[in-house]
Amino acid sequence: MESIRIGLLGLGTVGCGTVDILQRNREVLHGRLGTTIEIVRAADLDLKRSRPVELPGEILTRDPWEVVKDPEVQIVVELIGGIEPARSLILEAFDQGKHVVTANKALLSAHWSELAGKADERGVSFGFEGSVGGGIPLIRAIKLGLVANRIRSVTGIINGTCNYILTRMHREAKAFEEVLEEAQARGFAEADPALDVEGVDAAQKLAVLINLCFNAPVSHEDILHRGITELTPADLEMAGEFGFRVKLLASATHVGDKVEAWVSPALVPDWHPLATVDGVFNAVYIQDDNVGPSLYYGRGAGDLPTGSAVVSDIVSCARDILSGAVGRVPVGGFHPDVGKPDQVMLGNDTVSEFYVRMAAADSPGVLSTISGVLGRNGISIASVIQKGREPVRGGGVPIVMITHEASYSRMTAAIEEIDAQDVVLGDSFLMRIFSEPQAP
Amino acid sequence: MESIRIGLLGLGTVGCGTVDILQRNREVLHGRLGTTIEIVRAADLDLKRSRPVELPGEILTRDPWEVVKDPEVQIVVELIGGIEPARSLILEAFDQGKHVVTANKALLSAHWSELAGKADERGVSFGFEGSVGGGIPLIRAIKLGLVANRIRSVTGIINGTCNYILTRMHREAKAFEEVLEEAQARGFAEADPALDVEGVDAAQKLAVLINLCFNAPVSHEDILHRGITELTPADLEMAGEFGFRVKLLASATHVGDKVEAWVSPALVPDWHPLATVDGVFNAVYIQDDNVGPSLYYGRGAGDLPTGSAVVSDIVSCARDILSGAVGRVPVGGFHPDVGKPDQVMLGNDTVSEFYVRMAAADSPGVLSTISGVLGRNGISIASVIQKGREPVRGGGVPIVMITHEASYSRMTAAIEEIDAQDVVLGDSFLMRIFSEPQAP
Repeated sequence: MESIRIGLLGLGTVGCGTVDILQRNREVLHGRLGTTIEIVRAADLDLKRSRPVELPGEILTRDPWEVVKDPEVQIVVELIGGIEPARSLILEAFDQGKHVVTANKALLSAHWSELAGKADERGVSFGFEGSVGGGIPLIRAIKLGLVANRIRSVTGIINGTCNYILTRMHREAKAFEEVLEEAQARGFAEADPALDVEGVDAAQKLAVLINLCFNAPVSHEDILHRGITELTPADLEMAGEFGFRVKLLASATHVGDKVEAWVSPALVPDWHPLATVDGVFNAVYIQDDNVGPSLYYGRGAGDLPTGSAVVSDIVSCARDILSGAVGRVPVGGFHPDVGKPDQVMLGNDTVSEFYVRMAAADSPGVLSTISGVLGRNGISIASVIQKGREPVRGGGVPIVMITHEASYSRMTAAIEEIDAQDVVLGDSFLMRIFSEPQAP
Repeated sequence: MESIRIGLLGLGTVGCGTVDILQRNREVLHGRLGTTIEIVRAADLDLKRSRPVELPGEILTRDPWEVVKDPEVQIVVELIGGIEPARSLILEAFDQGKHVVTANKALLSAHWSELAGKADERGVSFGFEGSVGGGIPLIRAIKLGLVANRIRSVTGIINGTCNYILTRMHREAKAFEEVLEEAQARGFAEADPALDVEGVDAAQKLAVLINLCFNAPVSHEDILHRGITELTPADLEMAGEFGFRVKLLASATHVGDKVEAWVSPALVPDWHPLATVDGVFNAVYIQDDNVGPSLYYGRGAGDLPTGSAVVSDIVSCARDILSGAVGRVPVGGFHPDVGKPDQVMLGNDTVSEFYVRMAAADSPGVLSTISGVLGRNGISIASVIQKGREPVRGGGVPIVMITHEASYSRMTAAIEEIDAQDVVLGDSFLMRIFSEPQAP
C-alpha cells in the first residue's frame, strides 16, 4: 500500500509534538492504518532554531506556499496559528483538493463558515480536533459520538492557564498577580497572558463548540466574556464557605431559538465533576436529550496532547484517502445540503444565581441600602457574608452575597446602581453560579 | 438521496430506546446524515408485549433470520444479547455483506477474533459503541481519538449497578444486601444480580477494552474478577479514614509483554477523578504516552444512553455506505494485514498496595502473629486500624491494614497463611489500592 504524504506548516510547539509522535509511534500508526505516514514537506519561517525533533534538510522550506502547492502533499497540516496567512493557505489547499488538519481556534472562530463551506464543497476533510481541549477527543465525541442527540448545553474548563492559576490561588491562598508571575516563569502562561486571563482564548474555543453543538455559526467576538484578573483569594475562600469551587467556565445553552453563551469566572458546586478539574487539565461537560450529562477530561494543551489530536485527524484523513471515502462527515457535523444552519441567535442574558462581592463603607445602614437596590430590581438574596473589617482594594469592607436566579441584564443594572451609592466604595465584582439545565 | 435501510434484532430496553431516538430525532439525524434512516424490518420473539414505541405491524417478525436475510436491509442492529443466536445472525449478516451494530459485550468478549476477523475480511463495518460505557462515546475515543498513542492503562467504573450500590452504602452506611434489595425494587439491579455484583459484567466489558487498547484478543473468562458482595459499610468507612473511596474497578495495564488485568473492589484516592463518579454513572480513565491521563464520564446503561451509542454506530455505517468507503476503520482499530495482534499475555499478578480486613480473636499477640506472617512473605505494613471490639461476621474483632506494594500472588499466599492461624476467625477480605502507573 502506498504511503500517505503530508505537508506541515509551522514547526513550533505543536508542530514539533506532531513530528515527534509521527516518528516515535511510526510502527503503531502503521499497524493501525495499514500504511505509513510520510512528512514530505515542512515549512517554518525560522529554519535555524534548534528543535527537539529532526527532519531531513531537503524537505524544509521557509515558504508555506511551497508546501500547499506541492503535488506530492495529500494532507496539509496547518500549525502556524493566527488568521493570515493560515486562512489563505488552507483555502488554497482545499482548492487543490487536499485534506487539511489544523489546531487553530482563532481562525476557526473567526472564519468558520467560509472554511467549512469550502471544504464541504470540495469534498475534502477538515480536521480540527486539536483546536479545543488539546488531547481530549472532544470534537469527535460531539460530531460522531453524540450524533443522535440534541445537545442542550456545553460547559467547559477550556483554558489551562486560567485553571492552573485558579488552582494555585485556591490551594495556596496567593494573589492572582503572584501566581501569574510564577506560571509565566514555569511556562504555563504566555509572556503576554491577556488572551488567556481575559477569557478571549476560552471564547474562541467556545465559538467552535457552539458551531458544532448547535449548528450556529458564531464568532467569538459576539460572546460576552470576562476573565479572572479581578479574582482575589478571598473570593475563592468565600466561595468555598458556600460549598463552591471557582472556575473559569465557558458555557452555551440552547434555550428556545437562542443559544445563551458566556465566558466568566463561575462558582461550581463542589460535588460537581467540573469542580475537581484542577491544574492545567481541561474538561467539557455536555447535556443532551439521550445520554444526559457526559464529561470529557484531559490535558488541554502542550506539544504531545495537542499533537495527539492533530495526528488523530491526519489518520482520519488518511483513512478517507485509503478507503475512497468522499465527503464522509461534513465539517460542521451537519450535511451542507440538508442541515442548513439553524436560525439560532446568540444571547447573552442567561438567567442564573450570582455571587456579588461589594466594598462598602463601614457604617450602619449599608446592608439595607444594598438590599434595597437589589429588591427594587427584583433580585432576591439567598445568603450574605459580611466578615471582618479588613479593607479590600479600593477601601471599604467586603460584603459578599449569593442571589437567587436573575437575568444577567437585570443583575448588571442592579450592580451599576449599587456602585453609584455613596456607601459603596469601588466597583462590585460579579460571578455566575453554575447550575445544570433541567431536563424538560 | 436514497434512505438508509436498517433491520432490528430485539425490541427490549435498548431496542426500544434505539427506535425512540430514530423516531424522535429523525429530523436532526436527517440534517446530519443528509438522508433518512428507515427501519424496514424488526424481529422480536414476543410481538404482543406492550412497548413504549410503535412500529408498523407489517415490518415486525418473530424470526430474526428474516431480518438478516432481507435484501432491503443494509445495516443489521443486533440487540438480542447473549451468545446464540446473536453470533450466528451476525456472521450471516457479514456473509451477506451487511454492516452490523451491536451492544452485546458478552458476545464480543467471548468471540472477538471470529467476529472482527470476518467483518474485516468482508470489508463491512461492525460497530459496538454501546457495549461498554453505555452512552459514553468511549470506543470512538480509543479507536479514533487516541489512535496516535500507545495506551499504557485503562481503568474504569463500568458497572452501574455496583456503583449505585456502593454509592448508597457509602452515603447511608447501609449493608450490601439491604441496598441491593432497594436497587432491585427501583430497577437499578436485575432480579438475578450475580453477573453484576460478582464482577462478571465488568470483566466482559474489560475484555472488550483490552482487545481495543492493546490489540490483545482475550476472553473475560481469563480475567481474574471479584465482586462487591463481601463489602461492609465498615470497609467503606475505614477506607474513608485512610482518604479513599471504594469502587468496583476494572483495570488493565500494559507491563512489558503482559497485560495485567483485574476486576476488583478497590480503594481510589479521594482526589482522583474516578473517586467522585457516583450512582449509576460510569467513567473510564486512560493513560497513554502522549495525552497522559484522560477520562470519559456518563451514563453507562439505560434505553436512551445505550440507544444513543447504537444510533451513533448506525450513522457511522450509513456514512460508510453513502461515501463509498470500504473497510475504512478496521474493527479492532488495527489493520488486519499489518497490525497483527501483539503477542501479549494476560497477567493477573499486578503489584499494588492492598487493604486487608481480618477478623481476629480479641487476645494479646494477635497483631504480632499477623504481622509476622506478612513479614515472612515479604509484605510490609503501611498502616493499621484496630478500632473497637464489636465482633464482625464470623466473630472476632476487625483489624484493617494497608500494605506497601506487593504482588497479588504473594498477597493471597500471605492471606491464606493468616487465615490458617488459630487467632484469626473467618476469612480475611482483600482490596487493591488503585494507583496511577508512573510515566516512564
